[in-house]
Amino acid sequence: MLFTGRELRSMIHDNGTLSLSLQKVNIGVPADDEIVVRIEGSPLNPSDIGLLLGPADLSASAKADGDSPGLKFQILSSRRAAVVGRVGQSLIVGNEGAGTVVAAGREWSKLEGKLVGMIGGGMYADYRRIKGKDVIELPVGATAVDGASMFVNPLTALGFVETARSQGHKAIVHTAAASNLGQMLQKICLADDIPLVNIVRSLEQVEVLRGIGATHVLNSKDDSFSDALTAAIAETGATIAFDAIGGGTLGSAIVQAMEGAAVQRMKDYNRYGSTVFKQLYIYGALDTAPTTLNRLAFGFEWSVSGWLLFPFLQKAGLDVGQRLRRRVVDELTTTFASRYTRTIGLAEALDPDVLRAYERKATGEKFLIDPTRDAART
Amino acid sequence: MLFTGRELRSMIHDNGTLSLSLQKVNIGVPADDEIVVRIEGSPLNPSDIGLLLGPADLSASAKADGDSPGLKFQILSSRRAAVVGRVGQSLIVGNEGAGTVVAAGREWSKLEGKLVGMIGGGMYADYRRIKGKDVIELPVGATAVDGASMFVNPLTALGFVETARSQGHKAIVHTAAASNLGQMLQKICLADDIPLVNIVRSLEQVEVLRGIGATHVLNSKDDSFSDALTAAIAETGATIAFDAIGGGTLGSAIVQAMEGAAVQRMKDYNRYGSTVFKQLYIYGALDTAPTTLNRLAFGFEWSVSGWLLFPFLQKAGLDVGQRLRRRVVDELTTTFASRYTRTIGLAEALDPDVLRAYERKATGEKFLIDPTRDAART
Repeated sequence: MLFTGRELRSMIHDNGTLSLSLQKVNIGVPADDEIVVRIEGSPLNPSDIGLLLGPADLSASAKADGDSPGLKFQILSSRRAAVVGRVGQSLIVGNEGAGTVVAAGREWSKLEGKLVGMIGGGMYADYRRIKGKDVIELPVGATAVDGASMFVNPLTALGFVETARSQGHKAIVHTAAASNLGQMLQKICLADDIPLVNIVRSLEQVEVLRGIGATHVLNSKDDSFSDALTAAIAETGATIAFDAIGGGTLGSAIVQAMEGAAVQRMKDYNRYGSTVFKQLYIYGALDTAPTTLNRLAFGFEWSVSGWLLFPFLQKAGLDVGQRLRRRVVDELTTTFASRYTRTIGLAEALDPDVLRAYERKATGEKFLIDPTRDAART
Repeated sequence: MLFTGRELRSMIHDNGTLSLSLQKVNIGVPADDEIVVRIEGSPLNPSDIGLLLGPADLSASAKADGDSPGLKFQILSSRRAAVVGRVGQSLIVGNEGAGTVVAAGREWSKLEGKLVGMIGGGMYADYRRIKGKDVIELPVGATAVDGASMFVNPLTALGFVETARSQGHKAIVHTAAASNLGQMLQKICLADDIPLVNIVRSLEQVEVLRGIGATHVLNSKDDSFSDALTAAIAETGATIAFDAIGGGTLGSAIVQAMEGAAVQRMKDYNRYGSTVFKQLYIYGALDTAPTTLNRLAFGFEWSVSGWLLFPFLQKAGLDVGQRLRRRVVDELTTTFASRYTRTIGLAEALDPDVLRAYERKATGEKFLIDPTRDAART
């Protein structure tokens, strides 16, 4: 059987435009070690949106040439240099997803008709051909929606805890902490008995985290935020932070609070600051502004670094990766449950209003693409 | 024999002033394992100046109360929180120095009359009592001026190379590179065959480094600096930088150039940037402004950290420390020769005009304190 379906593509052109389109593609016949999955759920994670929309100026869009649904945007000129490497390439999008196996090569016939979750790109499509060994069969009772986000957020949250532990930190600070990822991290930390200091930006988000048992939840908009942060860090002993925001001064304020808490415990003045090592990892870019570090308040024992899931998994090794994946499957509908505020079809993802809505990346808002919603309409 | 001498002291007071004074102190009799050294040379390194002057506003000074030479300044109010730990403490100053052993306890009588170099604070003084095991006898022919700076700059320069090597980097970028420290680093890198990209701020400094055999010397004031930096990094393969400046965007520009050089070598576009790990160490604060990181141009494989000599030596261990010190002694008047533009007495260090001159920390200008110059006048 031959499957034909739509695939969402993003392309940056020589003339400084970015175009989104739905391409009709022939999925091909699965090889012996392959399967074909009908995608029934794929999340719009910030990293997906980054690839999908690049540095496009979303304030004005135009209908792309041709018959199929499509849009084009201007690229912000200040950011063109950063994407010169992808000019002229029609890129598939969608890191992860879940769905039903509709065809299988000889080695994987046992998967036929089963629900599986997978990672590997190109999930914003009706069908995805993929190696059988690269998918995970969903546990009994789990739906495609349950399995759609079983890799990026769960493994990132677990990766934070692994990173903290392997580097000898005993408590963690997390920003944008009411996100799906942040809620997973809070649940893991509760189960594993690791103190977590959550930083959010609204009272509503404070409530979300309190509702799942969080002890330390700070609203960065409160006047007393800075003092409360130092107090929470002093109480928990947190010396590592994971920051989804990246731009501005919040990361710096966290390191400064860690140093402040450490200096409070010192008996003698040391012009170089404390001997406590403080690590800030930036793993997101909810704020694309530059990062500003008031490092004179850090002492000299500090580090600010990028953190990304795939390099982490590579360094952690196969055994760790397998242990983490097993935990995700075991706790798929509890610790690692994701919540979506809206489900859209593939064609809907190219509606300018819908697109601008998911691009805002508001905490608490999360979109899921389910291509079967509009498949009939193509 | 009892030695009495002057000791330079720095103190921050409750009322927000910083006072400098020369205290008459009784050095005491050396214990069996101690010696007394008459200081004949002690450099004014940036780290010494930081402790000496703190965040004082140097634009206006007043004569301190009392008979002995002394000055007082207002502390910049924005920086008072950073020095609250030293309020009320009369601090000795001067990390390192050299001079003649004028008295020795039983165990160290062999050192009597010898020239020694030492580190340990309190070197801005006529005499320093210290354990015999904590000094290094200068090699034959070396003067106290040769030995005055045999610890901080030489071990820092060697520490950079050790750090780079132990982390697998094959070439180094250095800023404010025409300093005494920078010249030592260039000589080490030439001897050890490690490519070094020097960044300076004037044509005169370019000449200084060319004069000692530097290949890559870039003037950050040139219009073509950014392109030249990427080219030099691409040619050398530098992935680690040591930055004495700290504030502003130069450090960020270096990491960005490293990423640019790495991306040039990539065949396929990767939205997360290159897989090349880039490390920026900030070891100084010639610019006290915040550090601004344009991290979206770094990819995710990067780290920005503080670097400080003493924690480095502690982590490196005793064997490494001894190996590095041995090299300093062996090459004291060649690789590790320091150049001073002005020698001042202890009392002169409290002259407001002299003080403002050494506080400027201009590259190529370096002051040495020789307390014997004005000892007769006290």
